[in-house]
Amino acid sequence: MASTGCESVKVLAFDVFGTVVDWHGGIVREVTALGLDVDAGAFALAWRAGYQPAMRRVMSGELGWTLIDDLHRLILDDILGKFHVTHLTEAQKRHLNKAWHRLDAWPDVIGGLRRLKSKYMICTLSNGNLGLLADMAKRAGLPWDCILSAEVFKKYKPDPATYLGVAKVFDVVPEDVMLVAAHHDDLAAARACGLKTAYIERPAELGPRMPKDVSPDPRNTLHARDFLALADVLKC
Amino acid sequence: MASTGCESVKVLAFDVFGTVVDWHGGIVREVTALGLDVDAGAFALAWRAGYQPAMRRVMSGELGWTLIDDLHRLILDDILGKFHVTHLTEAQKRHLNKAWHRLDAWPDVIGGLRRLKSKYMICTLSNGNLGLLADMAKRAGLPWDCILSAEVFKKYKPDPATYLGVAKVFDVVPEDVMLVAAHHDDLAAARACGLKTAYIERPAELGPRMPKDVSPDPRNTLHARDFLALADVLKC
Repeated sequence: MASTGCESVKVLAFDVFGTVVDWHGGIVREVTALGLDVDAGAFALAWRAGYQPAMRRVMSGELGWTLIDDLHRLILDDILGKFHVTHLTEAQKRHLNKAWHRLDAWPDVIGGLRRLKSKYMICTLSNGNLGLLADMAKRAGLPWDCILSAEVFKKYKPDPATYLGVAKVFDVVPEDVMLVAAHHDDLAAARACGLKTAYIERPAELGPRMPKDVSPDPRNTLHARDFLALADVLKC
Repeated sequence: MASTGCESVKVLAFDVFGTVVDWHGGIVREVTALGLDVDAGAFALAWRAGYQPAMRRVMSGELGWTLIDDLHRLILDDILGKFHVTHLTEAQKRHLNKAWHRLDAWPDVIGGLRRLKSKYMICTLSNGNLGLLADMAKRAGLPWDCILSAEVFKKYKPDPATYLGVAKVFDVVPEDVMLVAAHHDDLAAARACGLKTAYIERPAELGPRMPKDVSPDPRNTLHARDFLALADVLKC
């Protein structure tokens, strides 16, 4: 069988939103449960669309270090206005904001992670804060060996300090870490730091009305349909 | 049944060296396996005795932020000289230094943590670095929900930033966090920050020749023989 080029890899670091959990489906479910009179899919997309610009405000120094929970709340307050939702209490807003802690894993994730964990150190590398990722893991049963977050490095992806930080934490060279993600830009930034990369197809990430292009990029080390296929390729 | 005063507690944060794992027995085992011609028990105690002074050099600013792996190596190089061990290769020293990643849990730990995890968020709060704690957890099967370390807060215990940092990570008030530790000084510092505290008896922490005083301190919220007794008291 052909070599995968991954023989030295010791650590698999996983992007989380979209790659591990279905944020679109989860936000739609919570918005619907709360009885908001909005297009729940459009609401989910708008909330998520605010994420990169909010992080850029932190990265540029316009905002000091701010956790994703707090950025999510800034965006939520903004889009509630845009969607003409005016009746939520503060407690309801706080509850809705933590919907990001209650997202479900894609169906292949837990089985795939259990297999991958038997051979590799498996950790998160997410811009989500530690408390969010720990709540999510506990609720969804994600068997991480370690939860790493932008919060540990005080930089958001795609800052090199995050990708290189994973290698430092585990005292390995960057080439012995593989980033697993459903986003080519995240993988490209990791590759520029010397990490190996595995692209995971998540065609439904943006919801049923917006199928995602999941074409391979040959610059990635691996391309896998899902975590079970990744475990197959890595012989776990 | 009397109230434990712990009804609001949501997070149990565990000290690790001595409380969760048997560092004395582990270091003795590794020093013996390496065939060092030293009193292995005395060597273990000397290594551990260098730990607090080394951290104080960081806390005082004399050393910049330094991970425990690196402090362990500074101390190791010093005590190898004192114990007249001169023949180790660099690779052997690196391997021995990582003995702290390969410590075994006390026999009650895994059963106790599994029960406590069913009701509480369970995390580490250790001065050990993240990589050390993750390696240890993976090898020993410690089912943490989240690994927190001085490395996250860039301060060593007993700095208040560590105890208060746990509460911030999980978005709870300090009173809703309980520190679990086998050391009264660690617990006292946590209590001063408003945390609840549980003392765990580890009479053999310092080895068989040096039984530890495990008398209760009535200022702690709870006193338990081991993690199974703690799970009993907390009705897990």
